[in-house]
Amino acid sequence: MALARVQNFAISLDGYGTGEGQSADAHFGHAGDRLHQWMFATRWWDAGGSGGVDDAFVQQHDPGIGAEIMGAGKWGHPGWQDDADWKGAWGPNPPFHTPVFVLTHHTRAPIEMEGGTTFHFLDASPAEALAVAREAADGKDVRIGGGPTVVNEFLAAGLVDHLHVVVVPILLGRGVRLWDGLEGLEKDYRVEATSSPSNVTHVTFTRVAS
Amino acid sequence: MALARVQNFAISLDGYGTGEGQSADAHFGHAGDRLHQWMFATRWWDAGGSGGVDDAFVQQHDPGIGAEIMGAGKWGHPGWQDDADWKGAWGPNPPFHTPVFVLTHHTRAPIEMEGGTTFHFLDASPAEALAVAREAADGKDVRIGGGPTVVNEFLAAGLVDHLHVVVVPILLGRGVRLWDGLEGLEKDYRVEATSSPSNVTHVTFTRVAS
Repeated sequence: MALARVQNFAISLDGYGTGEGQSADAHFGHAGDRLHQWMFATRWWDAGGSGGVDDAFVQQHDPGIGAEIMGAGKWGHPGWQDDADWKGAWGPNPPFHTPVFVLTHHTRAPIEMEGGTTFHFLDASPAEALAVAREAADGKDVRIGGGPTVVNEFLAAGLVDHLHVVVVPILLGRGVRLWDGLEGLEKDYRVEATSSPSNVTHVTFTRVAS
Repeated sequence: MALARVQNFAISLDGYGTGEGQSADAHFGHAGDRLHQWMFATRWWDAGGSGGVDDAFVQQHDPGIGAEIMGAGKWGHPGWQDDADWKGAWGPNPPFHTPVFVLTHHTRAPIEMEGGTTFHFLDASPAEALAVAREAADGKDVRIGGGPTVVNEFLAAGLVDHLHVVVVPILLGRGVRLWDGLEGLEKDYRVEATSSPSNVTHVTFTRVAS
């Protein structure tokens, strides 16, 4: 059975997956790039980077993935709906290389990019979106790509099979929180925590067969 | 210079230091003992326990401490103010063995217990309480003993020199949060994260000399 997976999802120690004040110049708001410096230091990101535990986790981002689901907040900064030419923040060849389903009330025609990425726009519930993405993934796994609101909603709906969260030891203080309303989530999962020399902690929730 | 230290302060992955619904039978509310199972498995707590990394951290609770400051929520469950005989939840020989300063608007006469613990009651700001506790500690360190509100207030006031937080990978969903309003706390500290085979993560904030 193909899985629904969250990979490399970074949060602050106080639980924020993105900061406050997102804009075209600040995709993560006041968090800047502080939630992802651990990732930039891996050889996955940069050939001269480290091949340690951060890299071992981050390398799981692509293999076996056949589609991604993302929220409108990841797709575009506030106001993208008014920009008919907006094609996402990743340039002409986005790093997905699969169909990507953007959850939004502001749907538009699909956008085909270089490298195998096509953005589709869906106004749908998490369960409906996952069914569509599974079909498109053709037997491979579906990545739930964020932001925090989307990951939270898929977790609340019980739709996530494997969750990889990266806790970065900073306190953002404000932004969008990942964990709200998920009391007892751990009961359905095998949970493991692994700290890294970079001082982030990888926490994985892997669903226990029921 | 003697330090103000927080030791062994356990929180859930979603940042709660105690659960909801504290009572005489549930000192941590609906969290029960889930925030402290890692501690009960150490040889510090139980002679047959593990001497690994959890034990190495927990052993720092007592040495070098000359006084503790705790909040009224740690001292007693809601309603203790109406119980003239309340002497804390730790029995006749509490595990402090130093002066303990309880921060409360409901002060009462000091209570001398067996084993060197005397409970004093202070209606004071964090800075004022720390000055009093330092005097009583006679050159030793002062432990800021919790609960989450007290630790939060001392952190917000910049009064904590060393903070040892234990992140337990459960989601409590409700209760009293540790991290609210502490944006950027990490800037003044050297921060280190160490996960344990028990799956908790020890996060230490050690103040950088300024």
